[in-house]
Order: sequence, then C-alpha cells, then structure tokens
Amino acid sequence: MPVSGPDPAVAQVRRAVRVALTPFGDVPLLVACSGGADSLALVAAAAHLRTDVHAAVVDHGLQDGSARHAAATVDLLGRMGVAATVHRVEVDGPGGIEAAARTARYAALRAARPHPRSPVLLGHTLDDQAETVLLGLGRGSGARSLSGMRTWDDPWLRPLLDVRRATTRAACAALDLPVWDDPHNTDPRFTRVRLRHEVLPLLEDVLAGGVAGALARTAAQLREDDEALTAVADAVLAGAADDRGVAHDALAGQPVAVRRRVLRAWLHGLGVTGLTAEHLHGADALAVRGPDRTGTALPGGLELVRARGRLVVRPANWPRRSQTG
Amino acid sequence: MPVSGPDPAVAQVRRAVRVALTPFGDVPLLVACSGGADSLALVAAAAHLRTDVHAAVVDHGLQDGSARHAAATVDLLGRMGVAATVHRVEVDGPGGIEAAARTARYAALRAARPHPRSPVLLGHTLDDQAETVLLGLGRGSGARSLSGMRTWDDPWLRPLLDVRRATTRAACAALDLPVWDDPHNTDPRFTRVRLRHEVLPLLEDVLAGGVAGALARTAAQLREDDEALTAVADAVLAGAADDRGVAHDALAGQPVAVRRRVLRAWLHGLGVTGLTAEHLHGADALAVRGPDRTGTALPGGLELVRARGRLVVRPANWPRRSQTG
Repeated sequence: MPVSGPDPAVAQVRRAVRVALTPFGDVPLLVACSGGADSLALVAAAAHLRTDVHAAVVDHGLQDGSARHAAATVDLLGRMGVAATVHRVEVDGPGGIEAAARTARYAALRAARPHPRSPVLLGHTLDDQAETVLLGLGRGSGARSLSGMRTWDDPWLRPLLDVRRATTRAACAALDLPVWDDPHNTDPRFTRVRLRHEVLPLLEDVLAGGVAGALARTAAQLREDDEALTAVADAVLAGAADDRGVAHDALAGQPVAVRRRVLRAWLHGLGVTGLTAEHLHGADALAVRGPDRTGTALPGGLELVRARGRLVVRPANWPRRSQTG
Repeated sequence: MPVSGPDPAVAQVRRAVRVALTPFGDVPLLVACSGGADSLALVAAAAHLRTDVHAAVVDHGLQDGSARHAAATVDLLGRMGVAATVHRVEVDGPGGIEAAARTARYAALRAARPHPRSPVLLGHTLDDQAETVLLGLGRGSGARSLSGMRTWDDPWLRPLLDVRRATTRAACAALDLPVWDDPHNTDPRFTRVRLRHEVLPLLEDVLAGGVAGALARTAAQLREDDEALTAVADAVLAGAADDRGVAHDALAGQPVAVRRRVLRAWLHGLGVTGLTAEHLHGADALAVRGPDRTGTALPGGLELVRARGRLVVRPANWPRRSQTG
C-alpha cells in the first residue's frame, strides 16, 4: 500500500476548502461549476470532504454549444459522484455583458441552494482577487473599491482566495479531470481578460514579481481598515441620526475618513444612490463648515440642506422657507 | 492694454502654489529645481507670488555634463529673478541608485533652506503620485504603501500633486522657459520609468481612461483612512503601554486594523525595524490568543513574548525563567 499522500496541489485545495467550511456544520453545500479548472478543483475538494454536495452549472446561452457544454459538465460531475443540474439564465440588462451575466448567474445560484442555510461555493482564486483590485483602481473611490472579494459574503463562500490559479489547474491534472477553457477567458473585449493577460504580466515584470500576492494582501488589509472605520461610523450615525436628519455637531469632531462613511451610510439608508466622491466631498464640507441654510447637490434631483443643527435631504426644487413663509 | 489673463496652464499652476503657500506667511521659500518642466513651472509660479524665493539645483554627478547642466539651470533661474545655487551630492549607499540619489538629494535640500521654517517646494505632480501608488502596490502592505506622497510633510511642500504633468509642460511653453528632459526619465532600467511609459498607458487603455486621477484620489482617501486609524491606535497605545511592555487586554477589544497599528507603533518606538506583514500577523495572534509564556519572532534576532498580562520584547536567545530560576 503506497504511503504517499495526495498530490500537493490537491492537498492545498482541500486544506483551503476544509478551513472555509469549518463554520458551516452539516448543511448541504452548493458549488457553482463552470467546468473550468478553478471550480472543478473546488467541487472535487468539497466532494472529498463532505457527503451532501450539490453542483450548479449555469448556462448563460452566450456561446454556440453552451447547452451541450453544460450537459457534458453535469455528466462529468455525476461521474465524480456529485448531483448536478443545469440552470439556463437570460443575460439581459444594463451595464454590459459581463455585469448582466454576473447578475443573472448569482440570482440563479441563490435560488438553486438545496437548503436556506446552504453556502454557495465559488471558485475565485488569488489571481481573480488581484484582477478585482486592479479593476477597483480604475474607479478611484478608495479602500472600498480596492478591497476585493470577501471569503464569506452570505450566501457566497470563496474558499480559494489564497490559492493560485496554477494550483487549481495542477490539482485537476493530478485528479485526471478534463478542464474546460472558456473562450471568453481569452477574449480581449473583456476588461478582466486584458488585465489578466496584459496588465498583470507587465506589472509582474516591472515590479520584479509577486504582484498578484501583493494585490491580494493589500485587498485583505484595506478590507480590515474599511471594516474598522465603518464600525466607528455606524456608531456615530446611530447617535447622530433621527427621523428629522443628522445632527452635524456629532460629525464635527470626527476625522474625515469617518465623516465620509457616516454620510454615505446615512444617505444610502435614505435610498440615495449614485453618490460620487464629489457628492460626499460637498456633503462633508456642508456638515463641517456650513454655513447654515445652504445646500449641496445630491444625485437624483435631491439636495442636502443644513438648517437648525441638522442635515436633511429634500428635492432640489423644494420651495425655500423664505419664499413660502 | 490687453484684458486677457495669463495662459490657463500658467494660471492653474499659480493657483495650486498660492493655495499651498497660504499657511506659510512671509517665510523665505526654497524651491528644488532640476530644470525639468515640473520644477521650472513651480519656481516660476513661486517667484510670481512671492519675493523671497530661493532655488536649489542638485547635481547628483551621475551623468556626463551634469555640472554644466546644473550651472545652466542656475543661469536660467537667475534670468527669472530667482537666486539659485548648485548643491553637489555624492550618491552612494544601500538600496539602489534611485534610493541613494533621493536620500542624498533630500539631505542637501534640507540643509539648503534659507530659514529654519522655510518649506522646500517640490515639483511632484499628479502623474508622479499615480506612479508612487503603483510602486506601493508591488509592496502589498496595505493603506500605508498605497497612500502616496503628502502635500505637506515638514519641510517638504508639494503644491502640484493635483496638477497634471502636461499642465506644467504647457505652462513652461507659455512662459517661454526652456525645459530640460532628464535622460534618466526615459531609461527603462528605472522601475518608475517603466511604470510611466509602459504600465500606466496600458492601464489607461484597458480601464478606459482616468487612471492617473483615480490613483491619486485613491491615495488621498487611503491616507485619510490611515490617519484616522493611526489616531485611534495612538490613543490605545498611550493607555496600554508602560516601561514594562503593552497590556494585551487593551488590544483584545479592538478591530485588527487598529491592533496591527498599535503593535507597529509600539515596536517602532522600541527601535524594532524591518517588520513585515508576517511579523505583525504573528504579534497580533499572540496578543489576542496567546497562550501565555509563548513568543513569536521579530526581526533583528528579537522575540515578542507574552507573560503576566503583557507583551514584551527581548532577544530571541534570552534564557527562559524556568531555565534560570
């Protein structure tokens, strides 16, 4: 009987999945599987560790033969001992094909869970995380846009965020699993594909290596920073807001990093969407410096007004008191 | 008499310099000038706004003809009405030619100030800031490495951090100032040159523009986040540290973003240098989880030990109490 353990790549993937599943007890799992190396390695590890593992294969209907590929993936998963079903989704909506496909896929996966407390395991790797951070750089909105994906973001569980893409591929090879290479993953019309195949290799070369890992570490630290400041902001907001608005005195002693988060959380809670850095800058200046009875523009035809110790939101064309009284 | 004001680029540079100089009263200024577009536009704006402006031209002695170029720049500055002197420095030391040149340059500029309270004006632009953020990405150490350069970092004043490099060049053209193009700025042996000429243009293309501005905005927000968390950490540290060490109970209720900053500030204060993310991760785990009477490695042959409610630093080969008692 051989004494060697599993292949090192297989062992690394299993270890990452075991750690991520620790808090979840015996609930049935759903694994999203495209047939690519990342999700195949993930489903193989989950099936090795647990008995009640389901897989969902989403067919976006965007490529010729996508239905045939989905059926073949379900067959393969069946041979791996995993119950799998195809979920055909309609990709249609605002924000480009990538965003629409993601929205449709996530809705289908959420609905496909075998149990209301089942996590949905996603195969995102450290390389995906690095690409996500670079995408966030282009938005320029600080820690939040650079903090990448979370390991646990109910119901989404990403056990492989510290595992390299090369490791999932090696694990599939060691397990003799036939890997599907999505042609979209080499299509330069997609921003993420160009980040993967052009920007990251150039950055690795110029910065002398280690960039993907550095981006992932940066994302983790910025997420922790953002969580700490958000907790402070939530506490400030709880003490400063009531039905009539936010007391701006409660903001005045706080650093700008906290004030901006208080204002964003409060405005989001009121249903104000589409806030830019400029909106928040204007709101913060009004909160700190005033003067009273002036306002600053918000998106959606709204206005933030400072009066009687409070900030309040109202339609920008609301009649002024002095005009109506 | 013509009613047109100055060229728009000249006006933008002057406005930025005027705003940055507002807190400085009548103290004489020192402007660092290489003869390149950024620092020439800066010195021209400073000389337009103030009477007591000095310029320093640093000769690193790294290029053939550098002494001749420095003398020509001093001549040009003289014709612009600015008293200028050459400072010849020796570039030698650890960390590569870029780091050594910067260290020598900054020491010479600090010493060249006409008055102890004189700020030293530096010509760094928004484009330099974007490159600095990308350099920080490769380090992977979170907000601090991404937060770029400060506008005011005593005695360094950078009035042009919101001004594009193209604007300083346009300002020099409008003022008919002959701009020197440092051959080092196109030498691909320098990481910063490759970021400028290869990585940033590719990122601009892939992310559809606006990347330099986005990186600069991100840097500003991350700096504010870091300052807020550092202030919290400093307050925690003041209450938790004494001559005997840091009380780890005081850390336990804090989020990890604060704990890591407390530990880093405390260890820096003790003279521990070369801390990596791994060292701080180990120190944090020891602070939060213990167990007592265990330790974790620090750089420089030191060890962090937890005992009697405190964390203390000692040599890693220090005899254990149980071995000596």
